[in-house]
Amino acid sequence: MERKTAIFRREHFNAAHRLFVPGWTDEQNFEKFGKCSNPHYHGHNYDLEVKVTGVPDPLTGYVINLSDLSSIIQKKVLAKFDHKNLNLDTREFASLNPTAENIVFVIYEILRKELDDSLGLTVRLYETERNFVEYPA
Amino acid sequence: MERKTAIFRREHFNAAHRLFVPGWTDEQNFEKFGKCSNPHYHGHNYDLEVKVTGVPDPLTGYVINLSDLSSIIQKKVLAKFDHKNLNLDTREFASLNPTAENIVFVIYEILRKELDDSLGLTVRLYETERNFVEYPA
Amino acid sequence: MERKTAIFRREHFNAAHRLFVPGWTDEQNFEKFGKCSNPHYHGHNYDLEVKVTGVPDPLTGYVINLSDLSSIIQKKVLAKFDHKNLNLDTREFASLNPTAENIVFVIYEILRKELDDSLGLTVRLYETERNFVEYPA
Amino acid sequence: MERKTAIFRREHFNAAHRLFVPGWTDEQNFEKFGKCSNPHYHGHNYDLEVKVTGVPDPLTGYVINLSDLSSIIQKKVLAKFDHKNLNLDTREFASLNPTAENIVFVIYEILRKELDDSLGLTVRLYETERNFVEYPA
Amino acid sequence: MERKTAIFRREHFNAAHRLFVPGWTDEQNFEKFGKCSNPHYHGHNYDLEVKVTGVPDPLTGYVINLSDLSSIIQKKVLAKFDHKNLNLDTREFASLNPTAENIVFVIYEILRKELDDSLGLTVRLYETERNFVEYPA
Amino acid sequence: MERKTAIFRREHFNAAHRLFVPGWTDEQNFEKFGKCSNPHYHGHNYDLEVKVTGVPDPLTGYVINLSDLSSIIQKKVLAKFDHKNLNLDTREFASLNPTAENIVFVIYEILRKELDDSLGLTVRLYETERNFVEYPA
Repeated sequence: MERKTAIFRREHFNAAHRLFVPGWTDEQNFEKFGKCSNPHYHGHNYDLEVKVTGVPDPLTGYVINLSDLSSIIQKKVLAKFDHKNLNLDTREFASLNPTAENIVFVIYEILRKELDDSLGLTVRLYETERNFVEYPA
Repeated sequence: MERKTAIFRREHFNAAHRLFVPGWTDEQNFEKFGKCSNPHYHGHNYDLEVKVTGVPDPLTGYVINLSDLSSIIQKKVLAKFDHKNLNLDTREFASLNPTAENIVFVIYEILRKELDDSLGLTVRLYETERNFVEYPA
Repeated sequence: MERKTAIFRREHFNAAHRLFVPGWTDEQNFEKFGKCSNPHYHGHNYDLEVKVTGVPDPLTGYVINLSDLSSIIQKKVLAKFDHKNLNLDTREFASLNPTAENIVFVIYEILRKELDDSLGLTVRLYETERNFVEYPA
Repeated sequence: MERKTAIFRREHFNAAHRLFVPGWTDEQNFEKFGKCSNPHYHGHNYDLEVKVTGVPDPLTGYVINLSDLSSIIQKKVLAKFDHKNLNLDTREFASLNPTAENIVFVIYEILRKELDDSLGLTVRLYETERNFVEYPA
Repeated sequence: MERKTAIFRREHFNAAHRLFVPGWTDEQNFEKFGKCSNPHYHGHNYDLEVKVTGVPDPLTGYVINLSDLSSIIQKKVLAKFDHKNLNLDTREFASLNPTAENIVFVIYEILRKELDDSLGLTVRLYETERNFVEYPA
Repeated sequence: MERKTAIFRREHFNAAHRLFVPGWTDEQNFEKFGKCSNPHYHGHNYDLEVKVTGVPDPLTGYVINLSDLSSIIQKKVLAKFDHKNLNLDTREFASLNPTAENIVFVIYEILRKELDDSLGLTVRLYETERNFVEYPA
């Protein structure tokens, strides 16, 4: 019998960012992105929730070892983004606007490569407790 | 490539309500609704979580501008229900029992009209941290 | 050696209330209490945090048995206020404005009588996650 | 019109457990399960989130009465597992490794039998705030 | 009778910052401040908890009107720091290291001037859920 | 000027325990400790909140480096208690009943030795979100 189960791991990172479209004037950027376009950056405590789906191993009872999953997230995601300026310190957002929608997609793409194809993956990212995103929807 | 993403916004309102079926006796109402049928009302801090799904704009990286979404929720939902008695002060619950299931449906119907047809919508309503509902399921 | 320790218990109740000064006009009440003066009441999920201080019993290691403390709170406080309209259903707030400051004081007075004089008592009341009070300060 | 709605109830229990495969050496168990294989057990505050989906009754506005659902969870799940050692005190985990994936499946199977076939069921179990599982996925 | 009561209000802001001592080398700064000394800044969701103590007005039952307190915090604190780079965008931290200890003190000094001398004031600042400070202690 | 400030760090551990007085019968222990006296242990996710008070260093702006404080807690407290059976695996609770009151005192005594005498110390321990203790009171 197939017994597909989801397992979730939450991790945390802090980063600075600025939202803007390079070709736009400051006024256009402020009109669209409000205070988030402040040229000197602002920041967030990002909470990352990674959901992996699969069938538990009948012997161990694990879909995936959470300490392995946590290691992957730390090495591949947090090491890149934690305590960084997303616009200035990362290759991924050098020319991509670091909206929550874009950050969650970039993290999904990074983690997707690290997991076995038999496992499903969904990533949720909290920018604040009241604003968050999920990919894929 | 389609890159469907969900974006969530939490808002908050406080309201009083009473659960009862008008044609029933007090005993029947107490039997079904317990303390929630107290004739003089009780109240809740309602947490509202609105989920919108769509494809981010390639230029801005936004599915929808969260400050626009927040404005819509405030004008169309909170202005109606915040600090109100749902049974006495609102047209929507004048003859509809304000259970969490009915409140979440009413809010869904209000918000559905405000959003572009290309966007998906799900609404979750927390009556307390331990009791909550979601529509559509 | 004196080893004074604090022990905390959180309980929860839901209630409706309205803030107003009886002798004032509706305008004066709205001026002071805003939406909280809505004549038909609104409501809250109140979180109650009771702090008792004392020296743990050397044999059992308890300052007070938390299940006893929880019973006292349920019988003396929650039975009175849970799922009630504070203005209409309670003697305590029949003529006392049910602000958080007044509710926390009333609850303190109720609990103070139930506890041994050797124990200290502080009560905190959350009206929402962002608005709360404590007595005595 | 079909108006499928989800309703959630959170409950809580505390339990001790140990993760291990009986035929393995202590080294093999430590290699796979880390500190969770400590022979003398460790423990958790488990948060259980039960999601039931169905169409609200047009008269009462309830998918299911949450106090009935809460009673079922308390009688069938909490009475079995709360303040217990899952490995030693329960029949269910006498020979099944009590990983979160296995616990959530066992709870699902228990609750599935108690609910009408017209209702959908999903169970989420938080082992900590950062580690949790859901079944079915 | 004196009935001293505390009332709390939580507000929220997002900001970028960098910790460093200007005269030190990058190595010295990294040695002391770790990742927090990253030259391109990182950021936080700061939660601010303002505690005001006083005697409730016998007529209104208010120590202070929370909507007035909230306005003061928004105009005097959030307008300065929200969505800002503390090091670059604020006069207060142009030459003062924006540690949580220094930020909470600066906010205390700002708010102290806005409140009546009869009221007590304590400020708590959460940099993350796990790291926070309070002044005065 | 003295500028005494408090700084807090939260850490987390999971443990099993059993509450009982060795000389008592099972009935006496159940009478006093209820389900917590279950002979096969149960467990908790303990949240530990350590508060240190002192005057910030004028140059760095730190009362104490939080990463140093976190290291001390991890080496001296978590290494002893995390994923352990408090009754069976620790010297501290071999003959001391592991109530929250006793655990918080033991942790206080451990940390007090590690901190400079100029610094104040208070320890809070959450056994669950609704039951917690603090020492000294």
